Amino acid sequence: MSSTAGQVIKCRAAVSWEAGKPLTIEEVEVAPPQAMEVRIKVLFTSLCHTDVYFWEAKGQKPMFPRIFGHEAAGIVESVGEGVTDLVPGDHVLPVFTGECKECAHCLSSDSNMCSLLRINTDRGVMLADGQSRFSINGQPIYHFLGTSTFSEYTVVHSGCVAKINPLAPLDKVCILSCGFCTGFGATVNVAKPPKGSAVAIFGLGAVGLSAAEGARVSGASRIIGVDINPNRFEEAKNFGVNEFVNPKDYDRPVQEVIAEMTNGGVDRSVECTGNIDAMISAFECVHDGWGVAVLVGVPHKDAVFKTHPVNFLNERTLKGTFYGHYKPRTDLPGVVEKYLNKEIELEKFITHEVSFSDINKAFDYMLQGASLRCIIRMVD
Amino acid sequence: MSSTAGQVIKCRAAVSWEAGKPLTIEEVEVAPPQAMEVRIKVLFTSLCHTDVYFWEAKGQKPMFPRIFGHEAAGIVESVGEGVTDLVPGDHVLPVFTGECKECAHCLSSDSNMCSLLRINTDRGVMLADGQSRFSINGQPIYHFLGTSTFSEYTVVHSGCVAKINPLAPLDKVCILSCGFCTGFGATVNVAKPPKGSAVAIFGLGAVGLSAAEGARVSGASRIIGVDINPNRFEEAKNFGVNEFVNPKDYDRPVQEVIAEMTNGGVDRSVECTGNIDAMISAFECVHDGWGVAVLVGVPHKDAVFKTHPVNFLNERTLKGTFYGHYKPRTDLPGVVEKYLNKEIELEKFITHEVSFSDINKAFDYMLQGASLRCIIRMVD
Ligand SMILES: NC(=O)c1ccc[n+]([C@@H]2O[C@H](COP(=O)([O-])OP(=O)(O)OC[C@H]3O[C@@H](n4cnc5c(N)ncnc54)[C@H](O)[C@@H]3O)[C@@H](O)[C@H]2O)c1
Ligand SMILES: NC(=O)c1ccc[n+]([C@@H]2O[C@H](COP(=O)([O-])OP(=O)(O)OC[C@H]3O[C@@H](n4cnc5c(N)ncnc54)[C@H](O)[C@@H]3O)[C@@H](O)[C@H]2O)c1
Ligand SMILES: [Zn+2]
Ligand SMILES: [Zn+2]
Repeated sequence: MSSTAGQVIKCRAAVSWEAGKPLTIEEVEVAPPQAMEVRIKVLFTSLCHTDVYFWEAKGQKPMFPRIFGHEAAGIVESVGEGVTDLVPGDHVLPVFTGECKECAHCLSSDSNMCSLLRINTDRGVMLADGQSRFSINGQPIYHFLGTSTFSEYTVVHSGCVAKINPLAPLDKVCILSCGFCTGFGATVNVAKPPKGSAVAIFGLGAVGLSAAEGARVSGASRIIGVDINPNRFEEAKNFGVNEFVNPKDYDRPVQEVIAEMTNGGVDRSVECTGNIDAMISAFECVHDGWGVAVLVGVPHKDAVFKTHPVNFLNERTLKGTFYGHYKPRTDLPGVVEKYLNKEIELEKFITHEVSFSDINKAFDYMLQGASLRCIIRMVD
Repeated sequence: MSSTAGQVIKCRAAVSWEAGKPLTIEEVEVAPPQAMEVRIKVLFTSLCHTDVYFWEAKGQKPMFPRIFGHEAAGIVESVGEGVTDLVPGDHVLPVFTGECKECAHCLSSDSNMCSLLRINTDRGVMLADGQSRFSINGQPIYHFLGTSTFSEYTVVHSGCVAKINPLAPLDKVCILSCGFCTGFGATVNVAKPPKGSAVAIFGLGAVGLSAAEGARVSGASRIIGVDINPNRFEEAKNFGVNEFVNPKDYDRPVQEVIAEMTNGGVDRSVECTGNIDAMISAFECVHDGWGVAVLVGVPHKDAVFKTHPVNFLNERTLKGTFYGHYKPRTDLPGVVEKYLNKEIELEKFITHEVSFSDINKAFDYMLQGASLRCIIRMVD
């Protein structure tokens, strides 16, 4: 046990006091982990769009003051009562969704949507007691996604913590805890493109490029990138994307354009935009008889997916996935091994790096569309 | 070779001269099979809804005079040039969709939608020369679905003919050439319910009951029948259906009712109604995380499938299927063997039997909703 176990830890955290306003680095008090919880010393964290959406709080429930952050890697500092599979010193990835290993979803080989620890964007407190573990002068600060990694120390439910190979470089594998796995897993775990197949990727942000990386690793021969922002095309070439379609260049639906390019449709498509029209196009552009489309993007609350049912009857399949269908505790250690074995590349996603005190720069890079992933170093 | 090979055959056929009017038994001339065609002596045929739809010709292209019929069993009388895998005397099932064994669909293990021989409801002639093989005093009579089995002899493309075990009773296995395989295959080949799972079947007609039979054979423990016609419930008990829901008994969507009955949703659902609301309910009633819904019913031309995309993102899968995903020539012989091994029951689908001259009675039984399948004996 470390000397801080059971004690409140004072450390630095980037606190968001108000929607859309720069974060400020504050000294926060981090309470010890309660039963089934883990306190983690965060070493590297990165910024994902989801942090930005909830920080902007447009169309999302505003909850401030809050500590954002959910893509990270760190080391266990101490564990609460009942935690048996993690010990101080373990290298870990905290994840925004968990795996209790007991519910119907955890027991199903198909689902990763744990009933107990499934993502909950509206909860700003710990599950056990409805309290926050963060405070400043007694004022509680809300958690985010159960992870709140924009803090030197954070408290996370042990079911949301994946123990990984201590040889893995934490400044790289931190991006596995959200964006990379979401896109990569959507392709390799759900779409499963056969070798030599044609795959369309809708949206060439970090999630879409991870999906493309999944298609590349699967041996797809045609990887067609679809984006309304042609600035994404040059960078996408590094991710195996070898054909490009900008829907704005055509006056007919992009699914027709893709069907013409591919003699009836692609074998697989993966939608990573959140845009409902792209979702419909991604479905309708797959080949009849065997095509599979996978939805990943998070749509507007009032979006409606519409298509003619004959598109299904002609033997097309539509699926959706969450966090790339990875069960965080069971599957993430294996993804880390794939990286260590050089089967997947993470470096090309990391376009920027800043020190913790410069965290607001990471927000700027993302808002300007300049970064894929910006790593934030917690320790100088 | 039989003595009739290469000759025009005169025989009896039930000809439909006008939409919705009783068929009349006529003497027709059946030309010899051309290259890649087969002439079949039909021994038993049965009536399916699809015959009735096109005979009524409501919202379908009227094409008269026409010889309907597509569920049948018979014996090869003669074969045209180039047919190497069938010889006179073979016991066969003609099928409304074919398998050329050469196109991309036939070469794919996932698809059964042969590019060359896929169902075409608007074609009333043979593929090879655009001509009919049937005539009365020189007047051509249109074919239906490439099968036209309401005739003592018919000519079919050899790619639409499944050669089966000669020990199989043709008066039973004739129903495999459409309805049974469509429903049964939708369950066992596409929905694939795990042992002990809960399955909802929407629509308890012949196709839905075949889907239920597939769930029973798969070891599903709960088979929930959904129909707006409660008269269907009693009979459905013979097909393994053990719970019943009539959407009209509730003032909330039936998917909510089913979710409550099943702690969040069924594991699998199979839609066999053709009604768009039932299609949407069938999708939305499957469990998040692992639920799979399969569409079978043929919708109206202007139907629109609508759902919130989050229903997909919560890890539900929607597929459609055609003829139960069976490849007719490759797979039907195996289904016949399953029947001979008593793994599947066909007798319970056969509620009526008439002689050929009474064929209009088969239409009456179906229009009254009294029959599941009525077998029509071609030979007295
Ligand atoms: N399902 C999950 O588990 C999960 C997890 C993380 C992120 N996401 C979602 O994945 C999506 C992508 O995330 P990201 O970080 O890569 O976002 P991003 O904003 O960096 O990239 C989205 C891309 O889609 C493009 N785009 C938008 N509308 C389009 C259209 N109609 N046609 C073609 N391209 C279009 C944009 O130009 C952009 O390049 C988001 O919706 C995000 O919420 C889902
Ligand atoms: N995909 C294929 O390859 C294929 C092949 C053959 C038939 N079909 C289709 O399968 C469907 C069923 O065929 P069938 O011969 O069993 O038809 P059927 O008319 O005997 O049975 C349909 C049943 O659905 C019920 N129903 C109608 N609307 C409903 C609703 N909203 N909710 C619940 N139940 C409802 C009816 O009461 C009826 O009992 C038809 O649409 C037919 O065209 C498809
Ligand atoms: Zn769980
Ligand atoms: Zn074919």
